[in-house]
Amino acid sequence: MLNITLPGGVIREVENGTTLDALCRDISMGLYRNACCAYVNGKVADLRDALTEDCEVAILTFDDLDGRKAYWHTVSHVMAQAVKRLYPEVKLAIGPSIDEGFYYDFDADFSITPEVLEQIEGEMKKIIKEGLEITRFTLPREEALAKMADEPYKVELINDLPADASISFYTQGEFTDLCAGPHLTDTGRLKAIKLLSATGAYWRGDSNRKMLTRIYGIAFPKASLLEEHLVRLEEAKKRDHNKLGRELELFTTVDVIGQGLPILLPKGARMVQLMQRWIEDEEQKRGYLLTKTPLMAKRELFKISGHWDHYRDGMFIMGDPDDEERECFALRPMTCPFQYQAYLNRARSYRDLPMRLGETSTLFRNEDSGEMHGLIRVRQFTISEGHLVLRPDQLEEEFKGCLELAKYCLDTVGMLENCTFRFSQWDPENPKNKYEGTAEQWNEAQAVMKKILDNLGVEYSIGIDEAAFYGPKLDIQYKNVFGKEDTIVTIQIDMLLAEKFGMEYTDADGQKKTPYIIHRTSLGCYERTLAYLIERFAGAFPLWLAPDQVVVLPVTDRAHEYAKGVEQQLKAAGLRAEGDYRSEKLGYKIREHQLKKVPYMLVVGDRDIENGTVSVRTRTGEDLGAMTAEEFIAKALVEIATKKRD
Amino acid sequence: MLNITLPGGVIREVENGTTLDALCRDISMGLYRNACCAYVNGKVADLRDALTEDCEVAILTFDDLDGRKAYWHTVSHVMAQAVKRLYPEVKLAIGPSIDEGFYYDFDADFSITPEVLEQIEGEMKKIIKEGLEITRFTLPREEALAKMADEPYKVELINDLPADASISFYTQGEFTDLCAGPHLTDTGRLKAIKLLSATGAYWRGDSNRKMLTRIYGIAFPKASLLEEHLVRLEEAKKRDHNKLGRELELFTTVDVIGQGLPILLPKGARMVQLMQRWIEDEEQKRGYLLTKTPLMAKRELFKISGHWDHYRDGMFIMGDPDDEERECFALRPMTCPFQYQAYLNRARSYRDLPMRLGETSTLFRNEDSGEMHGLIRVRQFTISEGHLVLRPDQLEEEFKGCLELAKYCLDTVGMLENCTFRFSQWDPENPKNKYEGTAEQWNEAQAVMKKILDNLGVEYSIGIDEAAFYGPKLDIQYKNVFGKEDTIVTIQIDMLLAEKFGMEYTDADGQKKTPYIIHRTSLGCYERTLAYLIERFAGAFPLWLAPDQVVVLPVTDRAHEYAKGVEQQLKAAGLRAEGDYRSEKLGYKIREHQLKKVPYMLVVGDRDIENGTVSVRTRTGEDLGAMTAEEFIAKALVEIATKKRD
Repeated sequence: MLNITLPGGVIREVENGTTLDALCRDISMGLYRNACCAYVNGKVADLRDALTEDCEVAILTFDDLDGRKAYWHTVSHVMAQAVKRLYPEVKLAIGPSIDEGFYYDFDADFSITPEVLEQIEGEMKKIIKEGLEITRFTLPREEALAKMADEPYKVELINDLPADASISFYTQGEFTDLCAGPHLTDTGRLKAIKLLSATGAYWRGDSNRKMLTRIYGIAFPKASLLEEHLVRLEEAKKRDHNKLGRELELFTTVDVIGQGLPILLPKGARMVQLMQRWIEDEEQKRGYLLTKTPLMAKRELFKISGHWDHYRDGMFIMGDPDDEERECFALRPMTCPFQYQAYLNRARSYRDLPMRLGETSTLFRNEDSGEMHGLIRVRQFTISEGHLVLRPDQLEEEFKGCLELAKYCLDTVGMLENCTFRFSQWDPENPKNKYEGTAEQWNEAQAVMKKILDNLGVEYSIGIDEAAFYGPKLDIQYKNVFGKEDTIVTIQIDMLLAEKFGMEYTDADGQKKTPYIIHRTSLGCYERTLAYLIERFAGAFPLWLAPDQVVVLPVTDRAHEYAKGVEQQLKAAGLRAEGDYRSEKLGYKIREHQLKKVPYMLVVGDRDIENGTVSVRTRTGEDLGAMTAEEFIAKALVEIATKKRD
Repeated sequence: MLNITLPGGVIREVENGTTLDALCRDISMGLYRNACCAYVNGKVADLRDALTEDCEVAILTFDDLDGRKAYWHTVSHVMAQAVKRLYPEVKLAIGPSIDEGFYYDFDADFSITPEVLEQIEGEMKKIIKEGLEITRFTLPREEALAKMADEPYKVELINDLPADASISFYTQGEFTDLCAGPHLTDTGRLKAIKLLSATGAYWRGDSNRKMLTRIYGIAFPKASLLEEHLVRLEEAKKRDHNKLGRELELFTTVDVIGQGLPILLPKGARMVQLMQRWIEDEEQKRGYLLTKTPLMAKRELFKISGHWDHYRDGMFIMGDPDDEERECFALRPMTCPFQYQAYLNRARSYRDLPMRLGETSTLFRNEDSGEMHGLIRVRQFTISEGHLVLRPDQLEEEFKGCLELAKYCLDTVGMLENCTFRFSQWDPENPKNKYEGTAEQWNEAQAVMKKILDNLGVEYSIGIDEAAFYGPKLDIQYKNVFGKEDTIVTIQIDMLLAEKFGMEYTDADGQKKTPYIIHRTSLGCYERTLAYLIERFAGAFPLWLAPDQVVVLPVTDRAHEYAKGVEQQLKAAGLRAEGDYRSEKLGYKIREHQLKKVPYMLVVGDRDIENGTVSVRTRTGEDLGAMTAEEFIAKALVEIATKKRD
C-alpha cells in the first residue's frame, strides 16, 4: 500500500499501481467528473498515470491553470478529429493550449470561412456528445513513424525526437494524435466550446517554411462561463491597441518599412515623449545618472558580455560574423555592456557606490516577421534601462529602491492593479546550456534574492528556467485586457558580468573588489506600455498623457474671437489646446471630439462672452458648468501635476 | 590687343598672349611679388596662363582664400622636395592645401620624429633661400608614365586620368611633381613655414590600402603671422573637445565598442538631454508635430527614396543586399522616408498644410574607421530632423520660418557669430550621376531658392556640387576654433521625393497635387554641437547647460548641517546642486570645482549661518558677495530661463 498526501495534509492509502483517475473516483464522484490532470510531487501528471511510491498529489480541475490547459488541449484534439472527419485530406501540424484557449495548425488548401468554422464546431459538438473514451499508448520510433506515415508534419516531429524515445499517442474513437499529454479521459467531459478565428501561421514559426492555417478556440465547463468570456472578448476587442491605436492616430505600420517597426504618429510620439521625460526626471530625483550610449558595437563587446554565445540569433548583425579579419557590428539587444563603460571610465572607490545609471535606451531584437504584433511584439523598442553598481551591503536597500520605483511608475499609469510578481530562477539542469556561471553562484544569487523578497514581503510565484543568462530576476507580470500575461518590468541580480568586464572598486580596506550589479527597468518598454495604456483606458487617457488635452468650441461665429483668446490663454499655460472653428454644428463637433477622447471641451457662447467664462464639458459628457478660463486652467494644471486618473 | 577688366572696373590693354604673371608686373611690382594665382572670368587660373581674349581678371594674394591655397600648395611641393633630398627612397603620394595649411602623404618606412620634422623644415628653408624658379610643362600619358616610373602612387594617379588627357607637371630645381596647379612662380616667394605634425593616413582614404605617413604644415608670408597662428593653435588645443571633453567626463570612446561610437557619460548625456528638450519644446511652440519613427527599414524603402542607389556604401546593411528572396534591412542614414509615413497615414487636404514634422532622430553612417574623430566624425548621431510638407504658395514663408528657427537656436548657444551661409547647388554636368531629376527641375528649384534667399537678404556664397541628391540647400557653415569649416545646419528644398512616395493633397479646386517638401535641422547634430560647445566655451558652459550648476562648500564642519539645508533648497528649486563635505581645505576644493567649470560655488561659514546667507563665487573667481539662498536661487533661475551666456 502507498501513502498519498492530499492537499491539506490528508493522507490516503491506495494500492501500488492505482491510477490518478481511480484515485479521483475514490475521493469523490464530483472530483472525478471535473478532474483534468494532477500534480504529483509538484509536477504535472496525466490522469492515466499510475502511482508507484509515496507522494503528494493534487487533482487539478478547470479552476487551476494547468487543469485548464489540459482541458483546452483536449478540446484542440477534438477540433482536429472534427476537421479530419470533414476534410480527410487535411494534414495535421500541432495543437497546443495557450494562455486563453487553444489552437491547431492545419495544412489545408481551402480557406476557413465563418461557415466552415461553424461546420467544424458542429462536428466537435457531436464528438463531445459521443462521449468517446480517450486512451493513451506508446510506440517505439519506427512504429510511431509507420503509424503517422500519412501525416508529414507528425513524421518531422517524430524524427526530431531522440532515437530511443518511447513516443506517446492519444486515441479517441477513430482519431489518434501524436501527443505528450496530459488529457482528460473522455470527450464527454467537455462542455461549452467556441471557435474564434482562423489565421495564417508558418510551420514551426519559420518564415521559410509553409504557411499553415491556424484555428483558435476557447472552451469552458459551463455555457454561462463561455458567454461571459465572449462578452469580455468583445469588450477587449474594442480596446485592442492594434485597432484603437491606429484609429486614434497614435501609430501605424507600413509594409515597405517592415513588420515590428511601428511608426509613432504625432499623438503617439507625444505620449511617449511625456512618459520618457517623466521617468528620466523621476530617476534623476532618485539619484540616477543619465547616460547615452551607442546602439551598436563591434562583435567583440558581445563576446565578452556573453550575448554573442547566448543571443546571437536574436541580434541584427552588420558584416560577416565569421570573418575575423574585418569589423563586424551588431545592434544591441540590451544596454548592459554599454552602460558599464560609464562605470569603467575611471577607477572607483567604495565611496562612489552605489552608482545608479539610467538610460532611455533603444534596443533591437531580430524576431521572425510572423511573431510581430502592433506595439507589443516589435523589432525595435525603447525602454528606461538602468544598472546599479553596488557593494554587497547595499544590495537589499537598492533592490528595494528599484522595486519601489517600478511600483510607483506602474501605479501612476494605472497598471499596478493588474500586476503579479514572479521570481524567475534558472533551470539547475540547464539542458540548453543557457546559463553562465556555476551552480554555487546561482544558488547564492537566488538565496540572496529570496531573502530580499521575503524581507520586503513580496508575494511571488516561482518561474523555473525564466532567469536571465547571468542571474535570477524578479519579473513584474502584467495581465492585459485579453487576459494575456507578459513581463513588463524586471529587476535582476547579476553576480557574473561585473567580473567579465573587469569592473571593480577599492574597498575601505584598500582591497580591489568586484561589485554586484542590479539590472532593472522602471516602466515597461514604451511601445508596449503605450499599447497597454490604450487598452487600459480605451484611449481615454489621463489628462497629463492625453495628446490633445482641451478643445475650445465656439457656439457661433460671434464667439470666434473670444474662443481664440481662450485658446491662446490655454496654450500660454502650457496646455495642449486647439480651437475648432469649422462651420459644423456644435453637437457634431462635440461627438467628434468625444470619439477622439479629448478630455475637456470648452464651449463658449454669448453668455460666456458676457460673463467672461467658459462652459466645461468632459469627454464622458459630464457638464462641469461655467467657470473663468483661469479657474479651468488652475484645475487642469493640478490634474496634470498629480497625474490624476479617472 | 586685349581689353582686360580689373577689379573696380579699370580696363587695361595688353597684347594677346600676355601671361598673368607679366600682367602683374605691369600693374605693380608689389602685386607681382605677392601674387599667388588669379581669377579669370571668375575661375582660378595659374600665373603662367596666357590671356587670349577680353576678360575679367583679379590677381589673388595670400589674403584671398584661393591665393592662400596656391601658396600652401606650393609649400607642400617644397616639403616634398626637401623629403626627397633627405630620403631619396621615400615615395610620394599626394600633397594638397587644406582649410588651414597643407599636407603631403609619403610612403616612408621610418617614423617621423620631431627631429626628422625639424630636419625637413631646415631643408625647406634652404630651398626657399635658393629661390628656385617653378616652371610648368605638360606631357601626353605615356611620357608622363615614363617620367614618374619610380613613383608608383603617381603612376596610379596618372592611370586614373582619361587616356587622352594632357598631364601637367611643375618643376623647381631638381624636383618635378605631377600637379594640376596653380602654383607661385618662385620658391623664393615663400616666407614663414612650420611643420606641425605627422600622422598615418590610408592611401586614397581606403582602409584596405597601405597606411602612409602624412605630414601637416602651415605657412605665412610674414613671421609675425605665423607666430600669431601658432599661439592661436595652442589656445585652440586647450579647447580641443576630444581632450577637454574627456577630461570633463562628458564622453569617452572604447575600442571594444568601436570607433565613431562615443559613449556620453552622465554629464555629457545631461547636456544633450537639455538641448534636445529645448529644441523639441521650441519646435512644438512653432507648430511642429513630433514623430518617432523606426531606425531601420527594409531595403525596399531605400530603393524608393533613392538612398539605395545614391548612398548604399554609407549605410549599415543587415542581411544579404543581393538576395531578393529574403528580408534585408538597413539602418537609416536620413529620416526623410520614415517621417513621410506620418503624412501618408491618411488623405490630406490643402487645409492640412503646411504640416511641420519634427523628430529627435538617430542616424547611422558607415564611414571608415580612419575617418572617425571624437564627437565630430561619428558613425551614429542624433539630430533634430524635420520635414515640412507644403503648398507652393507656402514655400517662402515656411523657408523663412526654418531659417529664423535655425538662427535663433545657433544664436542661443553662441555659435551664430561664427556661421556663414552657403547656397549649395548641383553640378549641371553631374558627372558622377549623383543627382536625381531633370535639369529643368533643378533650375526651377534653384531659381525658387535664389529668389527666397535674396528676398530674405541672406548673404551667401555658392557651392557647386554641394546639393543633396534630391534638391538644392542652404547650408549654415560653422567655423570651429581650429578654423575648420563644417556644415552644421541645412535647409533643403525638395521637389522630387514627394512624388516618389506618392504624397499628395487635395487642393481647394478639388485637384490632387504634389506638395513641396523642406528638409531641415534646427541645430546641428547633438554630438557635434556638444563638441563645438566644449570648444566654444572651453568647458565653461552657460548655467542652463552646465551639467553641474552649483556646489555648496562649508568652510568648517560646523557649517555642514547648514550647507545641507542650502543644498536641499537648491535641489528643490530644480537646480543641479551638490555639497562638497570632504575634509579638504576650502582653497583646494574651490580650485577643483573651478577646474570642473562649475558655474557657482556657494561658500558657507559661521557668518553665513548667523546671517542666513550664502557667499557666492563664480568659476572665474569673481566674488558676488553674500545673499540669501532664496536670492541666489531667484538670480540663477532667471539666468537659466533666459539661457544667458557670459
